[in-house]
Amino acid sequence: MPDLRKDPIVGRWVIIAENRANRPQDYTAAFQAQRKRPCPFCEGNEHLTPDEITACRASGTQRNREGWRIRVVGNKYPALVLEGDPHQHQDGLYKAMDGVGAHEVIVESPRHIVTTSELAEKELREVLAVYRDRLDALRQDGRLAYGLIFKNVGAAAGASLEHLHSQLIATPVVPVSVQEEIAGSLAFYRDRGNCVYCEMLGQELASPCRVVLKTPRFVAFEPFASRFPFETWVVPARHASHYEDIGNAEIEELAGVMKQVLGKIETVLEPPAYNYVVHTAPFDVQHLAHYHWHIEIMPRVTGVAGFEWGAGFHINPVAPEQAAALLREVAPDRHQSKTFLTRETG
Amino acid sequence: MPDLRKDPIVGRWVIIAENRANRPQDYTAAFQAQRKRPCPFCEGNEHLTPDEITACRASGTQRNREGWRIRVVGNKYPALVLEGDPHQHQDGLYKAMDGVGAHEVIVESPRHIVTTSELAEKELREVLAVYRDRLDALRQDGRLAYGLIFKNVGAAAGASLEHLHSQLIATPVVPVSVQEEIAGSLAFYRDRGNCVYCEMLGQELASPCRVVLKTPRFVAFEPFASRFPFETWVVPARHASHYEDIGNAEIEELAGVMKQVLGKIETVLEPPAYNYVVHTAPFDVQHLAHYHWHIEIMPRVTGVAGFEWGAGFHINPVAPEQAAALLREVAPDRHQSKTFLTRETG
Repeated sequence: MPDLRKDPIVGRWVIIAENRANRPQDYTAAFQAQRKRPCPFCEGNEHLTPDEITACRASGTQRNREGWRIRVVGNKYPALVLEGDPHQHQDGLYKAMDGVGAHEVIVESPRHIVTTSELAEKELREVLAVYRDRLDALRQDGRLAYGLIFKNVGAAAGASLEHLHSQLIATPVVPVSVQEEIAGSLAFYRDRGNCVYCEMLGQELASPCRVVLKTPRFVAFEPFASRFPFETWVVPARHASHYEDIGNAEIEELAGVMKQVLGKIETVLEPPAYNYVVHTAPFDVQHLAHYHWHIEIMPRVTGVAGFEWGAGFHINPVAPEQAAALLREVAPDRHQSKTFLTRETG
Repeated sequence: MPDLRKDPIVGRWVIIAENRANRPQDYTAAFQAQRKRPCPFCEGNEHLTPDEITACRASGTQRNREGWRIRVVGNKYPALVLEGDPHQHQDGLYKAMDGVGAHEVIVESPRHIVTTSELAEKELREVLAVYRDRLDALRQDGRLAYGLIFKNVGAAAGASLEHLHSQLIATPVVPVSVQEEIAGSLAFYRDRGNCVYCEMLGQELASPCRVVLKTPRFVAFEPFASRFPFETWVVPARHASHYEDIGNAEIEELAGVMKQVLGKIETVLEPPAYNYVVHTAPFDVQHLAHYHWHIEIMPRVTGVAGFEWGAGFHINPVAPEQAAALLREVAPDRHQSKTFLTRETG
């Protein structure tokens, strides 16, 4: 069973999941691998993945067989496992916990596509609804405290398989970064009587130099203190702390916003490499007035080096205002704009 | 002038240093570049770097000319600049500060070598003494709050030039990770009346399954909650909060420990890619009883993906106990052991 371990100084948790590799050669190889053949996520190769947890599939088709549009399976190398209870154990200074949790893979298409912008808007809507449904389902499990949905695209962003997929890791403790975000927004709320994200949206829209895109229900913008070039946050206009509370009309609009914004980012980055992470409130609280769910997209253009690791200080060579202007300029149809860019620089 | 910006939610500072690149193509290229020719850090190419700040050189040789053993120069693309005062400015929710600080490069050898284990122990001693002297010098500047010394080796660790060098960034604010480390160790001290690092050394030595190397004055071990495979901390046995207070006998011993430990890590990683960071107390405090300087070595074997960025939670596929056993096994002479490994796996 994986081991959850807590750093005794800063309280940071780490998952020691030894089953992921045994020999030094193994993880070095895993870090490089990109185009596994045959691809375990392509339709027809269902036998190459762990068991299907759920799927959106044509009526009359069978579990673990063809005929699906989206397929949720267990991760083949799970960071956490569902069986057992998260017993804590202490060894002198050190605190640890059994690595109980969920680690799921959401395969977003039966076709071998590699970027979100290749999905039809209708398909992306279904993916976003699956995110909601999986969080809802895992929330029922009293052992779990938090569900984190994220996507890695490209080797530089830590993807080990290129076929379009997201992951969900549900943990028995609330991750330290989430705790910090919630504590920070609570402090702001106590001080100003308002949600910091709501105020941020107000300020960004009043002076839209960092805004990439705006629809009635969502704003996509480059945060003032962007850590990465082209870092983009997608924030719902309606205050809500939990992604699970998203409505169908919001999902519909979010699919359009994500497809456009990611298409723009993919045009700027060649080859595309980015992570996105759904930031949402922990399972065991309801409707926080001070916290606001959102999606953070983090392109991986620059390397993260010693200064960033040592200080938690990022050096960003592109001002968010300049990044927003460049992203606004990219035509909505990325293939058109790609041709344009090639002609410009070629 | 670069801009320091504070995230209004979690208080994380970011340096927006636009002079580092202008066009998207530029930073993508910078991220790839590794073998710049001619190498600006090789002896004879002194004219290719910014002005020399200080150097260890043969008597009778001239500044910015040949004849040096170690050379400290300004970074060609500085994240912070020395001129001016760190004025704060507020724009609605957002706080920013002029990017005043120092960004120095410590070129560790006139020869084109790429890893620390290629330095003679005597040369490494001089490098470690330069670290101390530069921190001492920058500490005199009342505008600066913290000095962070770090090294990037290999493209995967964010190095843009391969010639062996370290960097020093001095900032007008104490970085958030340092603040957290100091707050965590203060909480421990208040609770237990002892330094958490001193207690950790006691526990590690009593049950040395994570110890890589021990000398009278230093212990190198894999931390219990290692974030990365082969993460290694080098901690002085004598309690001291500031690296600047290191004595000459300690420097002599530390050079031997670092050369051996990094040689072991370089043997395991092919090609070598790691960061190391000197963790030390801020400039404006003296002799903290609760904080203990140390060096953290972070090999870059696994990618950092969405889960790590989103949650501050790391997934480490190698138990620190196993990593320590593997590192202990590597023969002190890395070239011998490399041959051995090749024969084993070939």
